[in-house]
Amino acid sequence: MLAEFNIQRPDDSLRQKAIDKIDNLNKPKGSLGRLEDIALQLCLIQQTLSPKLKHPCHLLLGGDHGIEKEGVSQSPREVTWQQMINFTKGGGGVNMFCRQHNFKLELVDMGVDHDMSSYSAIKDCKIGWGTENFLYGPAMTEVQYLEALETGASLAEECIDEGCNILSIGEMGIANTSPSSIWLSLMGEIPLDDCIGAGSGLNTKGIEHKKQVLAQAVDKFLADYPDPSDEEIIMYFGGFEMVAAIGAMLKAAELKTTVLVDGFIMTACALAATRLYPECQDYMIFCHIGDESAHRKMLEVMDAKPLLSLGLRLGEGTGALCAYPIIESAVRMINEMNNFQNAKITKYF
Amino acid sequence: MLAEFNIQRPDDSLRQKAIDKIDNLNKPKGSLGRLEDIALQLCLIQQTLSPKLKHPCHLLLGGDHGIEKEGVSQSPREVTWQQMINFTKGGGGVNMFCRQHNFKLELVDMGVDHDMSSYSAIKDCKIGWGTENFLYGPAMTEVQYLEALETGASLAEECIDEGCNILSIGEMGIANTSPSSIWLSLMGEIPLDDCIGAGSGLNTKGIEHKKQVLAQAVDKFLADYPDPSDEEIIMYFGGFEMVAAIGAMLKAAELKTTVLVDGFIMTACALAATRLYPECQDYMIFCHIGDESAHRKMLEVMDAKPLLSLGLRLGEGTGALCAYPIIESAVRMINEMNNFQNAKITKYF
Repeated sequence: MLAEFNIQRPDDSLRQKAIDKIDNLNKPKGSLGRLEDIALQLCLIQQTLSPKLKHPCHLLLGGDHGIEKEGVSQSPREVTWQQMINFTKGGGGVNMFCRQHNFKLELVDMGVDHDMSSYSAIKDCKIGWGTENFLYGPAMTEVQYLEALETGASLAEECIDEGCNILSIGEMGIANTSPSSIWLSLMGEIPLDDCIGAGSGLNTKGIEHKKQVLAQAVDKFLADYPDPSDEEIIMYFGGFEMVAAIGAMLKAAELKTTVLVDGFIMTACALAATRLYPECQDYMIFCHIGDESAHRKMLEVMDAKPLLSLGLRLGEGTGALCAYPIIESAVRMINEMNNFQNAKITKYF
Repeated sequence: MLAEFNIQRPDDSLRQKAIDKIDNLNKPKGSLGRLEDIALQLCLIQQTLSPKLKHPCHLLLGGDHGIEKEGVSQSPREVTWQQMINFTKGGGGVNMFCRQHNFKLELVDMGVDHDMSSYSAIKDCKIGWGTENFLYGPAMTEVQYLEALETGASLAEECIDEGCNILSIGEMGIANTSPSSIWLSLMGEIPLDDCIGAGSGLNTKGIEHKKQVLAQAVDKFLADYPDPSDEEIIMYFGGFEMVAAIGAMLKAAELKTTVLVDGFIMTACALAATRLYPECQDYMIFCHIGDESAHRKMLEVMDAKPLLSLGLRLGEGTGALCAYPIIESAVRMINEMNNFQNAKITKYF
């Protein structure tokens, strides 16, 4: 494997103590549902019975995709750079939810097909002016793959060094549902057609065309790589922003930091990350199940249970950000709720 | 009808303008899912294209139930007053989420079976020391029904007079899933057995016993009232805290104020309220679908789509409070997100 990370599962010896603490809060056992699961997970990740959320950061990774040229997306390529610039002005979806939940927002150009150098608010990590068109060959080289992975890891590490212990990741990249669908099909062993949806708004005819293009790309890939490794799948089809997200997820896990996983594209990156290092999933909170039809299948492959289902399909990490207050509620529960003894309540089960 | 309210649907003439504003925000049409529905609803309720959330209030209504004496609940009756006192100390579920989302919390004794008069933080609106046991006759008299309804209405009006434009309601009342199940069965015309669940944690045997007791109560009721009105159903089985919740919901609708509807018991009150005045539903946001098995059926009867599904079954309004930041996100969306023109983004559909 090219990707080198040192990821350990959280020490499990605290589990029973954490469960006991949660069960003894003044409520019927289990009656705070998913909040109890999240509280337990945070106890294990942070190795404490009083977990805290500190300096939340959101990485917004932008990149373009060669496959966009085949008309697989409803939105034109220029929307990637236009939105990245819009984000610098505070008017995008990601901006408002970062403000709402007090996230530091880091805008990163991982490979946008536009000169972004005059925008000081956008960190320049450009690996290429978009990826190559994977209908004809690999989207990126091995060197680019490793560079993107390392960049994502460094971005995560910088946040964590600054005191962040909860990292959210979002993306902006027109056509990036296409690689996500292919990753799901190849890594999850699911028929490609079942992995493809409307993206930002394709109609039935558009979806049909997308299916044909992606099938052709996968056929060529499997002819050239009859028994591909996970990393070959990632490199051949992935975007720079997606590989950076994988790197960020893996580094966060290495540094025992909670990662918020957003919608379809970020879940595809989480799937890829868990293929490389299964242990990293213990550090992930799956935040949202979106409308992209294959998202449910993707979460099932990982046996992951998302917190929200609000019909979001904007990307940018908006689903992860919208779930953040639920995670805050879980933290309040375990830290602020009385137990049966100090509340002087009959323990009723 | 005994309940007298003057409820009008929101003026619908603003609908198209609100839809146009939402559709022109810089995102694929519909891509913010439920946030877009909520934003539209708030525009219509508040009759503005820039809705705001002001001085959120949470009414926590407590009351005991005569039917508890039949062993239909896992939790003993004393938990009602113990929890009410616990809430005055800030250590309950409802307290932490009110703090988190900056809700004013109003604790109200609508009919707790305990002397609460020494707790100044609990508003004394006691109508009785618990309701009568509806296995043998009506839970409350017509006079008590009207008093509870009027009290709930006054509580809501006080909040609204103080500037609140978003009202959340929760309950504390051991055994109050029992009346909720019966209301659903009788008002929704659903077999009683399908309306009964585990409440705060009954086992299979306990649920079986609950089914028998409630069936016996309903049989007697239908013998005495062969063609009952909705209000007869409400009075015969309801709790003082539940009728107060109905009064608060109806008054809020009369005063064109948004109401957050919590879990199984509060949804039962919403169902009862919409039976009396169907127009009031336009002012309700259904916040959470809980684990109580009949909750889904109840929401279906009203064609209501809840925002969250977090497996909560604590009551107290915790589901409504946990959904509040999603509603805040919807408000941010419509007020803060750039549109395609000022974001300078190609409109791509």
